Amino acid sequence: MSVTAPQGFEAAGVAVGLKSTGKPDVAVIVNRGPLKTGAAVFTSNRAKANPILWSEQVIRDGVVEAIVLNSGGANCFTGSFGFQTTHQTAERAAELLGVGAGDILVCSTGLIGTGDQVFRDKVLAGVEQGIARLNPEGGPDAANAIMTTDSVQKTATYQADGWSIGGMAKGAGMLAPGLATMLVVLTTDAVLTSSEADAHLRAATRVSFDRLDSDGCMSTNDQVTLMVSGASGVTPDAAAFRAGLTAICSDLARQLQGDAEGASHDISIQVMHAASEEEAVEVGRSVARNNLFKAAIFGNDPNWGRVLAAIGTTTALFDPYDVDVEMNGVRVCSSGGPDRPREEVDLTPRATSIVIDLKVGDASATILTNDLTHDYVHENSAYAS
Amino acid sequence: MSVTAPQGFEAAGVAVGLKSTGKPDVAVIVNRGPLKTGAAVFTSNRAKANPILWSEQVIRDGVVEAIVLNSGGANCFTGSFGFQTTHQTAERAAELLGVGAGDILVCSTGLIGTGDQVFRDKVLAGVEQGIARLNPEGGPDAANAIMTTDSVQKTATYQADGWSIGGMAKGAGMLAPGLATMLVVLTTDAVLTSSEADAHLRAATRVSFDRLDSDGCMSTNDQVTLMVSGASGVTPDAAAFRAGLTAICSDLARQLQGDAEGASHDISIQVMHAASEEEAVEVGRSVARNNLFKAAIFGNDPNWGRVLAAIGTTTALFDPYDVDVEMNGVRVCSSGGPDRPREEVDLTPRATSIVIDLKVGDASATILTNDLTHDYVHENSAYAS
Repeated sequence: MSVTAPQGFEAAGVAVGLKSTGKPDVAVIVNRGPLKTGAAVFTSNRAKANPILWSEQVIRDGVVEAIVLNSGGANCFTGSFGFQTTHQTAERAAELLGVGAGDILVCSTGLIGTGDQVFRDKVLAGVEQGIARLNPEGGPDAANAIMTTDSVQKTATYQADGWSIGGMAKGAGMLAPGLATMLVVLTTDAVLTSSEADAHLRAATRVSFDRLDSDGCMSTNDQVTLMVSGASGVTPDAAAFRAGLTAICSDLARQLQGDAEGASHDISIQVMHAASEEEAVEVGRSVARNNLFKAAIFGNDPNWGRVLAAIGTTTALFDPYDVDVEMNGVRVCSSGGPDRPREEVDLTPRATSIVIDLKVGDASATILTNDLTHDYVHENSAYAS
Repeated sequence: MSVTAPQGFEAAGVAVGLKSTGKPDVAVIVNRGPLKTGAAVFTSNRAKANPILWSEQVIRDGVVEAIVLNSGGANCFTGSFGFQTTHQTAERAAELLGVGAGDILVCSTGLIGTGDQVFRDKVLAGVEQGIARLNPEGGPDAANAIMTTDSVQKTATYQADGWSIGGMAKGAGMLAPGLATMLVVLTTDAVLTSSEADAHLRAATRVSFDRLDSDGCMSTNDQVTLMVSGASGVTPDAAAFRAGLTAICSDLARQLQGDAEGASHDISIQVMHAASEEEAVEVGRSVARNNLFKAAIFGNDPNWGRVLAAIGTTTALFDPYDVDVEMNGVRVCSSGGPDRPREEVDLTPRATSIVIDLKVGDASATILTNDLTHDYVHENSAYAS
């Protein structure tokens, strides 16, 4: 049931012709309360799309009535005209819902540069039609309407004792041209203040979506949103809520990784015994972004030398001549030299596990990525975007 | 004439079966003096191959009698046995030349992990045969013997008034598995002290080889060496020597870029009007390492949105909504929005020029890279290394 699983939310997904396929392309999710609390985290890319610029202002007071998301156009690098489109989107929704425009978040995903009058007219029509169709079972329709090159919807639900969290996600995996955006909406009927919601969202995002690094490229449109209705009446234990939110975010992140376009492997890079969590992340990311490593995995080649050459580019604490590397359960490298023979490693399954033991501390982190494939090159070179 | 163009040097290149093709695979270059000055810069990757560990010690006193380079095996991650091989290589050369082993540099390139007894025996045979064949015209033979996946030799000569510089290079372009190494040897008959040689080499390398970023991966074996014979008797003007050395390094770097394996475009990313040179480099590198940008160029797609999305990930000073981007002479983006239509850009030639104007200062830098192609994926996934 996705974002409408928790109490207090309604959603819809409609088709207004933004996508040439005629598939649904505008989603609306409304918080019916009693609380109207919201939190969001945005792309760290300094080149931000117009909807990001708008939403960053909306979220400042921690009050969110609704969110409108469109696919079929990113409205990025579309100038002040594009910003006006986003503003009008929020205005139209606010008018129809009887709330303030400054409490309406807007997200867009699609080709960079799309955002003209035709786009604007369709998005506004989508707002009207979407709000007309709002219903408490509309979560899956909303999840469907934000899809771009996703081959499947990505939704998840977390049920606790008396409260729950719902979620939907799109994108982020192997990025098709301009369809790079990761959009996530999480809803909960737990009772939280806006600062609690913000803190929990940042903590959960930090160890899930922030550690999904499919091709090292950071989108201009990424946004992860949490809306809080409080309709359960239950104030959750803080640690329990954070754990639940982290679990649902990790679930959605793995779904995004699994649907990475053109990828043939889902690679999990676990860095252990680092001096700090930040260093574990730095080391994991250096491997996740290394083209020679990712191409080797595509070729089912257990090339631990490339793992060492990748981590050697970081400033993290470790002795390059005293690290261990395991690939799919086989320790192919110990203390910086060869261990088990490469023939023992089977890299043909899609699920790929790399474990790097730095042996200098007790911190760890896992980065998720995908391999570098011919399909990735094809998808990202053949289409304008 | 390459490294033997300047007075005072002899070289040779021989075949000892390190390469399955039977092609030449050991090069020796000897400085006959009167000066025996040397300087070198090494990979910044903390995972260093055994020959790097050796050469870093040799270069500390600024005295270099000769250098031995082998292809057909990188002698990297080969443990203490591999280090012994490097040491014995220097010892054997020293013995035959009547000099100290601590003044013999050693470089290796080839598959990571190659460095067993068979490898050792062949390298030592190569030292003997190479020294037996030393001659003042041996530069091209030496350049030939360090080739791995290079399709052509890379040599250059810089002639000044009374002194000259010669050079040879291999690798660094589109990196084949484990053959990632960039090796460069520069020779000069100018009169320089070891600290002058070191300073000039670092300055020249900083703006040439350090700005060649074909696939973002940093080798375990890279080394750039400068040997000084002083045989011309001429002490050059410092600025003139630095300019000449920089010119020959830039020439060799462009040759490496042009021979990048599997590449179909040689991309020059010039960043202008940055707040500092370091920031210009940071911005250029962010584009050079961006897979979506590189794949777009492979597809002849003038996708300036991806350029902006790439530079937006840096911390350099600029306004993302006020930068200009030119592609092959056409300004496709100005002030962060669309300018000339994309149809005006012809990206079919191999030579590709991107100019990014940050409009915040007067520093600039150029980064060289190549596109992301199917051939790159194929070469780097299909072969163990």
